[in-house]
Amino acid sequence: MSLLEETIRGIKPQDEEIARQTQDRLDRLTKPAGSLGLLEALARQVAAVTGNPRPAFHRKVVFCFAADHGVTVEGVSANPREVTAQMVLNFLSGGAAINVLARQAGARVVVADLGVASPLPAHPDLVSAPLGRGTGNITRGTAMSLETARASLETGIRIALNEIEAGADLIATGEMGIGNTTAASAITAAFTGIDPLEVTGYGTGIDESGRVRKAEAVRRALKLNRPDPENALDVLSKVGGFEIGGLAGVMLAGASRRTPVIVDGFISGAAALIAHGLAPQVHGSLIAAHRSAERGHAAILNHLSLAPLLSLGLRLGEGTGAVLAMHLVDASCLILAEMATFESAGVSEKSVPAPEKS
Amino acid sequence: MSLLEETIRGIKPQDEEIARQTQDRLDRLTKPAGSLGLLEALARQVAAVTGNPRPAFHRKVVFCFAADHGVTVEGVSANPREVTAQMVLNFLSGGAAINVLARQAGARVVVADLGVASPLPAHPDLVSAPLGRGTGNITRGTAMSLETARASLETGIRIALNEIEAGADLIATGEMGIGNTTAASAITAAFTGIDPLEVTGYGTGIDESGRVRKAEAVRRALKLNRPDPENALDVLSKVGGFEIGGLAGVMLAGASRRTPVIVDGFISGAAALIAHGLAPQVHGSLIAAHRSAERGHAAILNHLSLAPLLSLGLRLGEGTGAVLAMHLVDASCLILAEMATFESAGVSEKSVPAPEKS
Repeated sequence: MSLLEETIRGIKPQDEEIARQTQDRLDRLTKPAGSLGLLEALARQVAAVTGNPRPAFHRKVVFCFAADHGVTVEGVSANPREVTAQMVLNFLSGGAAINVLARQAGARVVVADLGVASPLPAHPDLVSAPLGRGTGNITRGTAMSLETARASLETGIRIALNEIEAGADLIATGEMGIGNTTAASAITAAFTGIDPLEVTGYGTGIDESGRVRKAEAVRRALKLNRPDPENALDVLSKVGGFEIGGLAGVMLAGASRRTPVIVDGFISGAAALIAHGLAPQVHGSLIAAHRSAERGHAAILNHLSLAPLLSLGLRLGEGTGAVLAMHLVDASCLILAEMATFESAGVSEKSVPAPEKS
Repeated sequence: MSLLEETIRGIKPQDEEIARQTQDRLDRLTKPAGSLGLLEALARQVAAVTGNPRPAFHRKVVFCFAADHGVTVEGVSANPREVTAQMVLNFLSGGAAINVLARQAGARVVVADLGVASPLPAHPDLVSAPLGRGTGNITRGTAMSLETARASLETGIRIALNEIEAGADLIATGEMGIGNTTAASAITAAFTGIDPLEVTGYGTGIDESGRVRKAEAVRRALKLNRPDPENALDVLSKVGGFEIGGLAGVMLAGASRRTPVIVDGFISGAAALIAHGLAPQVHGSLIAAHRSAERGHAAILNHLSLAPLLSLGLRLGEGTGAVLAMHLVDASCLILAEMATFESAGVSEKSVPAPEKS
């Protein structure tokens, strides 16, 4: 059995008993029932994923995967493709937004080259796992072969398993790749059936005419390649990206090892569509960090029935929203671990019936 | 000049030059312009409020003010009024949600009795500044006299100034008071002119018939007292609360000392309506932590033109949303302090024009 199949088979159903126990505990804590909203849902989820009624995360990792996209020759991006490699160097020297926000969250940034076009120097902190020097131009052919699509997933699985085996207990996804919002739009349109213009946004800062041109590129890519939404590997190979496949692999690996995975924004969301297409049972392990400002992200969240924790108008990627969400994951765990119960604090419980369920 | 007038006169206009400098810096950092969304707006705001181009907060304080409400005899709350005092004891022993989440955020909780009905034991960590043993029943008369309303504001100002003079550099508001969502609904209806039923919610957990009864109590209180929305002191005295006046005082004090104030949810929002009514220039110093699940909060945010940072379905109060938002305030400061610029990191800037402004 291949690593991909083995990983998918390793994804077990949620621990419903622990979810129930966690709900019971939440209802005994000194607060109106349900009044911590999404933090309570998050507490139930992380307890059920980890199988630990008092989850706590001590080794957080954000995977920041970089790769290039052949479709950039179609003029879909505001930035030259050299920026992908330049930003990888920025990640390695600690000056990018993801470095700053990951430090705040106590998370380590694992930077990996999944297929950057420009040469990158060897660096002790760079995981070098390139699958090519950028994908093919999806308006002229496939992004990559089926074999490479599978390899991108398995590369992500391997990188994630390495970290999980070294102790990572909360993982998050992030990426960098000039042109990757175009691939993400194509993946989103393929899975949701929504018109490309509705799921194509401004990326790093093109104007409205650029957005229309970009949506047309997505439309041509879909028409030429006809990705099959029933076959996620087909979608990944035809209109995906190396980093997107890698991040889908990270999600599968996390789910197979009962490690919650915080999914960043639009590109990570497209990776979640791939992971979910391969293994719908990955769903329980995924935490949607935020609702991105990038058009198309809402369609992904809706398709996957994921409720985002933050809505800050972010559209940076790199995993920035995901590490910001780590504070909320920690908060949900601390609530379970540290709050007093009505009984222990001597606080009277509610004296009138609960509101009617609608 | 009274402390209230002196404090209001001390609120100076924002430092627009620092806001401009901050925007310039944000645009030179290695990210697409504007891609950090509300975090960028927050960075500009805290720089402008503090007058510091590289703001950083080292002494965070959340004010958790408690008081009781005479209107509880009308059956508007799911909990007996004794819970106010019981929860104060819970705050003092560190077991409430606000204690847990404030510890996570590195914030100190200042618990103050602004007028709790049940007797409270002396405690070294309790600021005892009661203005009565609960307000009057607003369906039968005023909540408090004009003199007491002014005293509640000045009590809040004094407590906040004490902390600011001791070094507090980022402050947040929170509260506990069985019945205080009823007062907050009355204040909201008074200032916005919206029908009470539209701004009255379930509080700690009444049912729909209870909500209708509560909205009717608000309607009777407004009809009897006729609070004048042009006169915030009048509104506070007629349908307010001791803790609500106190928190409005905290906001005025923060603004007068260039200290940003994170406003929690619905009750704190009602206090912000009072503070804003007294001194509209307080607006620049206020940060809306979150959008509460409590009906009526959206009307407050809209009336005050405040964009909430979080939307987690919280409806607990105590300042819980406000301390969760501190992580985002810190994040916005770290972005300014630690991110590399395009120049320093050798990253190419955007090569095509910016999107058209709509």
